[in-house]
Amino acid sequence: MSISKRQLTTPADSMTPVAGNGLLDRRALLGRGIVFAGAAAASVGTSITGAAAEPLKDDPWSLVMGEPTPPRQAPSRFEKDVVRTLSNPNHELRNSHARTPHHLLHGTVTPSALHFTINHTGIPDIDPDKHRLVIHGMVKQPKIFSLEDLARYPMVTRMGFVECGGNSAPMFSSEPVQATAQALHGLASNSEWTGVLVSTLLEEVGVDPKAKWFLAEGADAIALHRSVPVKKGWDDAMIALYQNGERIMPGNGYPMRLWLPGYQGNMNVKFLRRIKLMEQPAMSFYEAKTYSQVLPGERFWRFHFLQEVKSFITHPSFGHSLKGPGYYEISGVAYSGTGRINRVMVSADGGQSWAEAALQGSPQPQAFTRFRMPWRWNGQSVVLQSRAWDEAGNVQPLRAEFVAARGQTSQPVKNPLAFPNQHYNSITSWGIDSKGEIKHVYA
Amino acid sequence: MSISKRQLTTPADSMTPVAGNGLLDRRALLGRGIVFAGAAAASVGTSITGAAAEPLKDDPWSLVMGEPTPPRQAPSRFEKDVVRTLSNPNHELRNSHARTPHHLLHGTVTPSALHFTINHTGIPDIDPDKHRLVIHGMVKQPKIFSLEDLARYPMVTRMGFVECGGNSAPMFSSEPVQATAQALHGLASNSEWTGVLVSTLLEEVGVDPKAKWFLAEGADAIALHRSVPVKKGWDDAMIALYQNGERIMPGNGYPMRLWLPGYQGNMNVKFLRRIKLMEQPAMSFYEAKTYSQVLPGERFWRFHFLQEVKSFITHPSFGHSLKGPGYYEISGVAYSGTGRINRVMVSADGGQSWAEAALQGSPQPQAFTRFRMPWRWNGQSVVLQSRAWDEAGNVQPLRAEFVAARGQTSQPVKNPLAFPNQHYNSITSWGIDSKGEIKHVYA
Repeated sequence: MSISKRQLTTPADSMTPVAGNGLLDRRALLGRGIVFAGAAAASVGTSITGAAAEPLKDDPWSLVMGEPTPPRQAPSRFEKDVVRTLSNPNHELRNSHARTPHHLLHGTVTPSALHFTINHTGIPDIDPDKHRLVIHGMVKQPKIFSLEDLARYPMVTRMGFVECGGNSAPMFSSEPVQATAQALHGLASNSEWTGVLVSTLLEEVGVDPKAKWFLAEGADAIALHRSVPVKKGWDDAMIALYQNGERIMPGNGYPMRLWLPGYQGNMNVKFLRRIKLMEQPAMSFYEAKTYSQVLPGERFWRFHFLQEVKSFITHPSFGHSLKGPGYYEISGVAYSGTGRINRVMVSADGGQSWAEAALQGSPQPQAFTRFRMPWRWNGQSVVLQSRAWDEAGNVQPLRAEFVAARGQTSQPVKNPLAFPNQHYNSITSWGIDSKGEIKHVYA
Repeated sequence: MSISKRQLTTPADSMTPVAGNGLLDRRALLGRGIVFAGAAAASVGTSITGAAAEPLKDDPWSLVMGEPTPPRQAPSRFEKDVVRTLSNPNHELRNSHARTPHHLLHGTVTPSALHFTINHTGIPDIDPDKHRLVIHGMVKQPKIFSLEDLARYPMVTRMGFVECGGNSAPMFSSEPVQATAQALHGLASNSEWTGVLVSTLLEEVGVDPKAKWFLAEGADAIALHRSVPVKKGWDDAMIALYQNGERIMPGNGYPMRLWLPGYQGNMNVKFLRRIKLMEQPAMSFYEAKTYSQVLPGERFWRFHFLQEVKSFITHPSFGHSLKGPGYYEISGVAYSGTGRINRVMVSADGGQSWAEAALQGSPQPQAFTRFRMPWRWNGQSVVLQSRAWDEAGNVQPLRAEFVAARGQTSQPVKNPLAFPNQHYNSITSWGIDSKGEIKHVYA
């Protein structure tokens, strides 16, 4: 991360756009100051004379003893709008969605307080000392585990996303829904998970070679249960106990959940109380109905577990506005259920030309990667898009390709049996007009 | 992260201890099940007959509609003791420390709610729309920046720790203080920080080559200010705006703080309102008094910025107890202000023999790295220790070496001018007796 003064010497042509409507070479981010010398020095910040700057006038909060220190700290009262939006705020007897405010966050970690949740029968108030996990079915030695038992096993810590299969469902509409990245894509979040690998416990109980699936069941009132290929259990499935350092949040499955890196959220069974080894899938409610994806021509996919390669721009996006021409950074998140993100391309002209974005840090498999693109806006209308590739070579489909393969609907998506509404992973386009106002567009 | 069945074949000798008192080869963690087949299968979890496991009895929380979904979720009521401990709970007119509960957390991210804080005049209630940052002094063009201005610049996201120079001060006592890792080492935490590099803004204002330092000043009532070598500004210093994805917490410097990767916490000025370029350090209160480290022989170091390579075991540690012999995982955190951690050794016999721990994921520079060591406890008395190395070859000193160089005191550390109490980075030892009870010991 160390930037020497020598590295700050940017190629002379770094201010030359590399794609339409002012996208700059990502390498210009290495020579940060230079970008501004040309692009923004006159427009960002307020120049002052030396005398005006010293002393800096004290603001009211600098003149009084501040607030007490609490045992758990919470965000500033000025950040009260940085919250999840709720689909069922009156806690009616149905499912409840809470969406992550991507357009108000930055970086790659989703704060646990703002991780998305979907629960079908509320959030169970589980006593962790009494909760048990049973592993049984086609095993040599069925076993019951307490939380204290699990703490004895080797643990693993890794970053990774969870995404609902129905995330981005509004994108199936034939007209672009005017909504924030939170409303469109807020059913995906990214955390550091720590727990015991399922493979550790499978070895412990001894799996019958004929067992090809396991049923995972939760302790919520609906006893949500899904069938998972046993291969996923051997590969990388985890019994997650900690989320971003502390015990996982109640809405995310406290005191333990199944985490299946890259698989649709609904399969990542929360409040996990049972793993049962089986020869065949159970064809339970969720795997036999909602999550059987409808395709054009009255066909459907029975199983569609993988959350495929995807990206969207969070800054700038719907809900923001640009304050006049000059330098801005375009930034967003990219992720793939298959592995690491290895390339993100950005367009400012609706896909006519593309430039490669800088990827922050070391992309991790099945985890959010933050991408960044330097941009000098000339004040005219533009359409911003991002498109991601993963290490296996999978590419985020263009919208026309996606709609041809998966369909769209001219009606609001209400009945999951009648309309396609799962696993949208195509492109999101933000149209910016000459006033700097941002709309969701299809391009 | 994918573990194939083939990889699960562990070398036959993986159950043979590689160091005293039952430390196992870290490669045994790749063949997780195998460890247990030999070490713990009989003692972890409860074996059941097939009939007893189906159906699993419903717990009370599985029989009722659960709790509502809140806009911001909070930990379970059963986790109410996972909080920071406060040095000034009645908010008296003096400084206030809040310590991170390392022994109750896992992974590498510190939840923002539990990040340590030290504030000298409470936590200012800053209106982010009115807060300004001025950069002036020996610059070509002094400038004032609003938060909105800073949002225009290229940002950087990276993991990293902040540690108070006074963290681990109780370790200078000549007798081991009986206390948790929270009480001993709770003034260090690790977050994902996102913000604008100081170098970007230095280029923007144009720095006089004669300027060798900058003063950083906060908007709290004490206007806490410290001098920082301008080289650190060019290297990797950041104006941090986001912490673990959301705006930084009030106690951590909302709406912006200086982050100096690897430098003592006090220099990472919070509520940042001023950067002033200077030829000489200002010799302000904190740099001229508390943070001038006292050494044996009435000598002292004027400046000691770097938080040097360090590690401590969090699991098991004081406050935990072991429930009988068998398999356990020893785990903790390691970090270095110089760069990446590249080796951690663990001893179970008070330093007579050592074995190499597994490092989780890809260690990042100036960031917590989680280490893990498989261990089979035979039920006899042991002393657990960890010792870290960084990529520059720096090694965490043994206690005898550290005390010889830096001193210790037979009295409680009260007056920082009279006793050594800064920058402890030597070893922490946990003594475990045959009952599984854990004490802090010197070994």
